[in-house]
Amino acid sequence: MRAVFHEAQRLHDPERFLVRGSPQPSPEQPARIDALLAGVHQLGLVVEAPRDHGIGPIAAVHSADYLGFLQTIHGEWQGLPGASAEVIPNVHPDRRTATYPDHPVGRAGYHQADTACPIGPETWQSAYWSAQTAVAAADLVLAGAPAAYALCRPPGHHAYADMAGGFCFLNNSAIAAVRCLAAGRRPVVLDVDLHHGNGTQGVFYARGDVLTVSVHVDPHGFYPFFWGHAHERGEAAGLGSNLNLPLPLGTGDDGFLLALGRGIEQIRSFGADVLVLAAGLDAFAGDPFGGLEVTTEGFRRIGGMCAELGLPTVIVQEGGYLCPELGDNLVTLLGGFRDGQAVRG
Amino acid sequence: MRAVFHEAQRLHDPERFLVRGSPQPSPEQPARIDALLAGVHQLGLVVEAPRDHGIGPIAAVHSADYLGFLQTIHGEWQGLPGASAEVIPNVHPDRRTATYPDHPVGRAGYHQADTACPIGPETWQSAYWSAQTAVAAADLVLAGAPAAYALCRPPGHHAYADMAGGFCFLNNSAIAAVRCLAAGRRPVVLDVDLHHGNGTQGVFYARGDVLTVSVHVDPHGFYPFFWGHAHERGEAAGLGSNLNLPLPLGTGDDGFLLALGRGIEQIRSFGADVLVLAAGLDAFAGDPFGGLEVTTEGFRRIGGMCAELGLPTVIVQEGGYLCPELGDNLVTLLGGFRDGQAVRG
Repeated sequence: MRAVFHEAQRLHDPERFLVRGSPQPSPEQPARIDALLAGVHQLGLVVEAPRDHGIGPIAAVHSADYLGFLQTIHGEWQGLPGASAEVIPNVHPDRRTATYPDHPVGRAGYHQADTACPIGPETWQSAYWSAQTAVAAADLVLAGAPAAYALCRPPGHHAYADMAGGFCFLNNSAIAAVRCLAAGRRPVVLDVDLHHGNGTQGVFYARGDVLTVSVHVDPHGFYPFFWGHAHERGEAAGLGSNLNLPLPLGTGDDGFLLALGRGIEQIRSFGADVLVLAAGLDAFAGDPFGGLEVTTEGFRRIGGMCAELGLPTVIVQEGGYLCPELGDNLVTLLGGFRDGQAVRG
Repeated sequence: MRAVFHEAQRLHDPERFLVRGSPQPSPEQPARIDALLAGVHQLGLVVEAPRDHGIGPIAAVHSADYLGFLQTIHGEWQGLPGASAEVIPNVHPDRRTATYPDHPVGRAGYHQADTACPIGPETWQSAYWSAQTAVAAADLVLAGAPAAYALCRPPGHHAYADMAGGFCFLNNSAIAAVRCLAAGRRPVVLDVDLHHGNGTQGVFYARGDVLTVSVHVDPHGFYPFFWGHAHERGEAAGLGSNLNLPLPLGTGDDGFLLALGRGIEQIRSFGADVLVLAAGLDAFAGDPFGGLEVTTEGFRRIGGMCAELGLPTVIVQEGGYLCPELGDNLVTLLGGFRDGQAVRG
C-alpha cells in the first residue's frame, strides 16, 4: 500500500470555532499530520506527493460558485471594516427561498454551514492539495493497486457540493468516488468516522450510481444534528442508495462492528467494484470528541472487516484528533486492512 | 390614534452579536423603548397595555415547534457544559435535506438564522408581549379606529414562521396582518424599515391573500443579503403578491418616496382594505446602521404618503436604533400619517 500526502496541506491553521456560544481553539490542527505520518512510517508505507490534476476532478463534485468563493473570500473579507482574521459566517439563508448573495458576509453564510470551518489565507491551498491527494490515491487504485492511503487534511466528509462545514472544505472522499465513476467504476463510500458523513451523503443523495454508507454516533445528540438519521435513505434516483447506521453514545468495538457488518452487506448488494473508505479515527475512546468507545485494537477489526469485501480500496483520511494514540489507531486500521487483503490474496 | 405597549417588552436584553467574525454589543437595546415612548408622549397619544390573547394569534403565523423552542431553549441551553449565557447558534442546516434535530445546539441552528437574535432568560416574555401589542393594535383598527400604533419591541419583520433572525423572534407585522385576515379583511403589509422585511415576505411568500411590499436598502450589499431582491415576486398562489423595492445605499428622501409611490400603486391594485405599516425608523440618515439618508422631515412625507391610501392602518414598530432623533422620527412619521388622514377625513 502506498500513501499520498502534500506538504501544502500543513498551511491551513484554523484558530477557533464557536462552541455553544463561546469561541474555542480548533482541534483540526496541522499537528494531526505529524501523528498520522508517524503511523504511516511505522507501517513502512512509501509516501508520495500528488501530481496537480487541476480543478477538474474537484469541480466534478463542487459548484463553480463555491470554488470561486473558497479561492477569493479571504481577501474580500479582509477588505471589510472590522473584519476578523478568519472568515466566520454569522448570517445563514434558509435555502428554500434564498437568492444567491453578492456581499462577502452573505456568501460566507451561504457557503459555510457552521463556525467550525473558518477560512484563513492558506485554507484554499491546503484544501486543494488535500483533494489532489485523494485524486492521486484514487488513480493508484484505478491503475491496479489493491489499496492506497490518502493522508487528507483538512478532512472532507462534512463538505457539501457548495457548502463547507465541520473542519471540511472539499469533500475528498466524494472526489475520489467521482474519480472512480469517471473511470467507469461503481464506487461505494463507506464512512467510519465518529461523525456522520453528511457532506458525502448530500453530494450523492439524489444519485443511484454511488452508494453511501455511514456508521457514526447518533446525530440526535451529536454534530451534524440535521443529518445522519436512519430514515434518510436518499431521494429521487438515489432513494435506497444511502444507508445511515447511527450508534448510541459510548458504543464500543462490538456494537460498532455489528453496524459495520450491516453496511458491508449493503455494499455487497449494491455490486460495488471499488471502495472509498472514509477513514476517520475519532470513534476512538480517547479522542477529544469522546462520542464512541472504539479501541486501538477495534480499528484493526474494522480494517479487517472492510478488507473482507475484497474490493480495491481508496482509504481517505477524515477526522481523528490529537491524542497520544492517533498514529497507533491509523497503524491498526491500515494494518488490519492490509492483513485482511493479504489473507484474501 | 392610540398607542399600545406592555412593560414586559423591556425584559429582553441582548448582550452581543457576531459581526464579521467578532462579537459586538447589540444595538437592539431596551432603551429604544424610552426614545419611542418620548415620541408617543410628544404626540399626545394615549398608551394602553394589551390584553393577553394567548398563543392563538401568534400560532396563526408561527409553527408549534418554533414556539416551543423559543419558550424552552434557554433553560435547556444552560444545561449544556460550557454554554454561553445567551443561546447563540453555530451550526445551520441546509433545509433542503435536513432532519429536524433533537439536540439544543441543533435546534438553535435550525430556528435561529443568524447570531443577531441571541435568546436570554426573558426573551420569550418580551417577544410574547411585543406580539400581543401588535394584536391589540390590530383589534383597535378592526373595531373601527382609523389607525393605531403598536410599540413593538423586540421587532419582528426578520422572523420567519419557524426562524428568528436580525433581532426578531415573533413577526409582529405578520401577526397583525393575519389577525386582520381572520376578521375577513384583505390586508397588505407595507414595510419601510431600512432592512428588507424578509421574515414577513417568507411568511406570505406562497399566499395570494396578503400583499407584501418592502422599500429597503439593496440587499446585494446589506443584511439580509439572501432576500429582498426585486426579482423575488412570490411563488405558487403568492406569485405577484410580493413587491421588493430595493434602493441604492445612501438614497435620500426623494428616492425613497419615489419607490414608496410605486408600492402605494401596487397596494391600490391589490384592493387592500387594511394596511399594516411595518414602521422601521432606521432608514434615517443618522441611524447607527447608516444605509439610507432619509431625514426627520422625510419621515413626515412617508407618513403622509401612506395616509393617502385612505386605509385603516395598524402601525407596527420595527427597527430604528439609538440616536438623538429616534423619538423625533417617530413623531414626524406618525404626525405626517395623522395629518394626512385628517386631510382626507
